[in-house]
Amino acid sequence: MNSIKSTSIDWDNLINELTEIDIIRDPVQIAKLSLDYYHFSPVLRDTLQDKRADLVVRPNSEAQVLQVARTCVKYKIPLTVRGAGTGNYGQCIPLYGGIVLDTTAMNKINSIEPGIARVEPGVKMAAFDKQAREIGWELRMAPSTYRTATIGGFIGGGSVGMGSIEYGQLRDRGNLLAVRVVTLEDEPRVIELRGDRVQTVNHAYGTNGIITELEIPLAPAYPWAETIVVFDEFMNAAKFGQALCDSDGLVKKLVSIHADPIPTYFNAIAHFIPDGKHCAILMVAEFCLEPFRDLVAEYGGQITYHKNAKEASKGTSLLEFTWNHTTLHARNVDSNLTYLQTFFFDLERVEHLYRHFGDEVMMHLEFLRVQGKAIPAGLQLVRYTNKERLNEIIRYHEERGALIANPHTYILEDGGRKTIEPEQLEFKQKMDPYGLMNPGKMRAYFEK
Amino acid sequence: MNSIKSTSIDWDNLINELTEIDIIRDPVQIAKLSLDYYHFSPVLRDTLQDKRADLVVRPNSEAQVLQVARTCVKYKIPLTVRGAGTGNYGQCIPLYGGIVLDTTAMNKINSIEPGIARVEPGVKMAAFDKQAREIGWELRMAPSTYRTATIGGFIGGGSVGMGSIEYGQLRDRGNLLAVRVVTLEDEPRVIELRGDRVQTVNHAYGTNGIITELEIPLAPAYPWAETIVVFDEFMNAAKFGQALCDSDGLVKKLVSIHADPIPTYFNAIAHFIPDGKHCAILMVAEFCLEPFRDLVAEYGGQITYHKNAKEASKGTSLLEFTWNHTTLHARNVDSNLTYLQTFFFDLERVEHLYRHFGDEVMMHLEFLRVQGKAIPAGLQLVRYTNKERLNEIIRYHEERGALIANPHTYILEDGGRKTIEPEQLEFKQKMDPYGLMNPGKMRAYFEK
Repeated sequence: MNSIKSTSIDWDNLINELTEIDIIRDPVQIAKLSLDYYHFSPVLRDTLQDKRADLVVRPNSEAQVLQVARTCVKYKIPLTVRGAGTGNYGQCIPLYGGIVLDTTAMNKINSIEPGIARVEPGVKMAAFDKQAREIGWELRMAPSTYRTATIGGFIGGGSVGMGSIEYGQLRDRGNLLAVRVVTLEDEPRVIELRGDRVQTVNHAYGTNGIITELEIPLAPAYPWAETIVVFDEFMNAAKFGQALCDSDGLVKKLVSIHADPIPTYFNAIAHFIPDGKHCAILMVAEFCLEPFRDLVAEYGGQITYHKNAKEASKGTSLLEFTWNHTTLHARNVDSNLTYLQTFFFDLERVEHLYRHFGDEVMMHLEFLRVQGKAIPAGLQLVRYTNKERLNEIIRYHEERGALIANPHTYILEDGGRKTIEPEQLEFKQKMDPYGLMNPGKMRAYFEK
Repeated sequence: MNSIKSTSIDWDNLINELTEIDIIRDPVQIAKLSLDYYHFSPVLRDTLQDKRADLVVRPNSEAQVLQVARTCVKYKIPLTVRGAGTGNYGQCIPLYGGIVLDTTAMNKINSIEPGIARVEPGVKMAAFDKQAREIGWELRMAPSTYRTATIGGFIGGGSVGMGSIEYGQLRDRGNLLAVRVVTLEDEPRVIELRGDRVQTVNHAYGTNGIITELEIPLAPAYPWAETIVVFDEFMNAAKFGQALCDSDGLVKKLVSIHADPIPTYFNAIAHFIPDGKHCAILMVAEFCLEPFRDLVAEYGGQITYHKNAKEASKGTSLLEFTWNHTTLHARNVDSNLTYLQTFFFDLERVEHLYRHFGDEVMMHLEFLRVQGKAIPAGLQLVRYTNKERLNEIIRYHEERGALIANPHTYILEDGGRKTIEPEQLEFKQKMDPYGLMNPGKMRAYFEK
C-alpha cells in the first residue's frame, strides 16, 4: 500500500491556495462531516468512530473541484468524497485524515428531459423528483434516505432501493448513463465516461475519480399509493410479496416484508399492525389497486393502511420504514440491534433461515430484480452479541447459498462488490496514481 | 351439445325487428365477415372455409347490441361476435351460421386518463394509441395486427403481443380492469365485471357475453426506437434476446428472434439482413440506446437497421414482421408454410428443438414475461406435409416439456386456454342458457 500521510501539511498555508472555496475547519463540523451511519454496525463503530478529516471543503463547481484536486496532488493529501453521509459502511469516512470533499453545494440540475437528466452530484433525490415529476418523470430508484441523500452519493456508495423491483440494481446496464469525473493525476483533468465505462466509478466509494456530473435515466412517475397489508403467517407475507413481484400486470415500486416483532419498532405506524402480525409495506401504482386487492385476498392478507398517491405525498412516506430505515427505527428502540444484507434468491432459503435463527435474526425482506427475476433480498435485524457470533451467522447463511453483502466492513470487495475487475484497478491506477482517493477502501489497490 | 339450427328462420321478417341497425346481407360481404386468418392453418382451412353467417349486424351502441341479443334469444339464433377478424384460429367464424355481430361500428373512446381508459370494443388499437399518446400513454400490449385489430377483438380472442415482455399476458391480473357485457338470457341485460371476474370473458372467444365496453390499463408511452441486429449464430441471437429481456435497466417493448432463412421472407426489409444471418427485431426505448449498444457488442451482434422513434412512427413498423406477421410474410412467399405457438420456457429447449428439426421447423422466438420471468416463446414456421406429421411435431415438442398453444384448432381448450374453470362454465350457462354464443368453441360446454 502506498504510504499516506497528511500530518506534515501546513494547513493554513494550504487554505490560501483554495481561494473562494467554502472551507470548514470547526472540529465539531469536521467530526460530523467525517462520519456516516457506520454505527449501525458495532464492528465498524469500534473501528471508525475516531476517524476525522483534517479539513472539509465544499466546492460549488467543477472548476473548484479541479482546484481541490490540484492541491491534493501537489501535497499528496488523501481525499475522500461525501454526499449527505447517509451511507452505512463508512464509505465516506476518511481512514487517513486529509480532505473530505463535501459535494452538497454542487446541487444544480443541469437538465431534465423525458427519460434522461443531467445533474451535479450533490442534488438531493427527493428535491430532484419534485422537479422531474412536473414533466412526468422521476428517479428510477432511491434509498430510504431519499429525502436527504444525494444522487452522487447514491451512485458512489449505494446499490439498490425503492424502484429496484422494476429496474434492478444501480450496476445494471442502463441505470447510469454517463459520469464526469475529475482525476487526481499530476495534471488533474475532467473526463466523461459513458456506456459500460461508467461501471468503473459506479459504487466505487469515490476511489477513482471525483464525480462532478451524472447523466441518469428516469422512470415514468406513476401516482404511487402506499399500503400496509398484514398476515397471520410470515411465510404467507413472503409468498404474497413474491407473487406481487411476479404479477406482470401490477406496477409496483416497493415490496418490503417484515416479520413480527419488527413492526413493533415502527412507533409512528405500529398501531396499523396488530400484535403478532407480519406485514408487507408497499408502493403500488394507483390504477392497479383493484386487481392488487384481489391478490391480497388470494393470500389471506388484510389491508390496514392505505393512502392514495396525493395523500401519501404529504406525510411521511412508508419508504421511511423500509430498506435501512427499518434498521434505523429498530436501533432507536434497541441499540443492541444490528443488521445483515442478504440475497436469499428464493423463498425456500428464506423459510429455512427464518425458522433456524428465530428471534436472533428477525426477517426483513426487500424484493428486487436480479437479472430479470424478482428475488427476495433482505436486511435482517440481528440481536448482536459479539463479532464471532455475527461472523458465525454470516457463515451459516453463506453455507446455505445466501449471498451476504456484508455491511460490517468498509472494504469495497468485502461488502457487496465482491471483486474488482482488472480494468477497474487499471483505471484507478491511472486516475489516482498517488493512491489519494479514499485510501484504504479498495483492497485490490492497497494489496497490489 | 344443445341442438343449434338457424335454417328455419324467416330472415326477412327478423330483419324488421332490427330496425335502425346496420345489416349486411350481401353474400360476398357475409363471406368476408364470416372468416378470419384461419387459413394460416391447413387443418382449419379444410374445416372452416365453408362456414358462413346468415346475416351480419353492425350495431353502433349498447342499446342496439341489446336489441340483437333479444332477437337471438327469441329465435334461438347462434350469435358470433367479431372485431376486425384478424384472429388466426377461427375464433370468430360461425360454425352454425346465424348472426355475426361485427363490433367495428362501436368505436368510441369513452375516456383516456393517466393509466386507465374506457373504450368500446370496436376501437382500433393503433387509432387508440394515437390519441392516448397525446397525454403520454399507450396500450400495454398489442398484436402485430395493431393497425387494424380492435381492442375488444384482442381481449376476446388474443393473448399476447408487443409489450408482453413487460406486462406479460392479457390474462395476468391487472391487464384488463373491467368489461361490460350483454347477456343472452331470456331478458338480455348488461352486466359489468370487475377485478378477477373479468377472467370469465377474457380470451373466451365471445362464448359468454357480448362485450360492449372495456376498462383497460395503459402503459407510459416511451419513444420506441426500432432496430434490427444480425448474428452469425442463431443461438447467439437467442441468448442476446434473453439477455436483453433480463437487463432490468433497459426498457423494451419487442424482442423477436428469427433464424435463417426466415428473414428472406421479409421482402421489404430482407436487404438489411445479410444472407445466412439470423436476426433480432427490436423495439427499445430511445434513451436506453447507448447501453443497449454495449449489450449488442457483448453478444457479437451487428446493428443493420435503426430508426429513432420519430422516424419509426412514419413508415411501416418493424412490429409488422414479428409475432404472427412473420407467418403472414412467409406464407405470402410459400403458402405451404404453417406455424406453431410454443412456450419453450428456456433456451436449452430452444436449442434442442432448433437442431432437431432443422429446416422443417424454422425457429421464430418472441420473448414475453410469464409469472415475472422473461421466457422464450415462439411462432415457429413449419413446412407442412400432412396433419399426422404436424401432430407428430407437436407431440415431440410436448414430450420435451414445451407447451404448445395449438393454433390448428378452433376449440378454446385445445388452443392456449387448456382448461375452463368450473366458475367460467357456470358463468357461461347463466349468461347464455340456450348455448347461442359462438357455439361449438367451448368444449367444456358442448360436452357437458
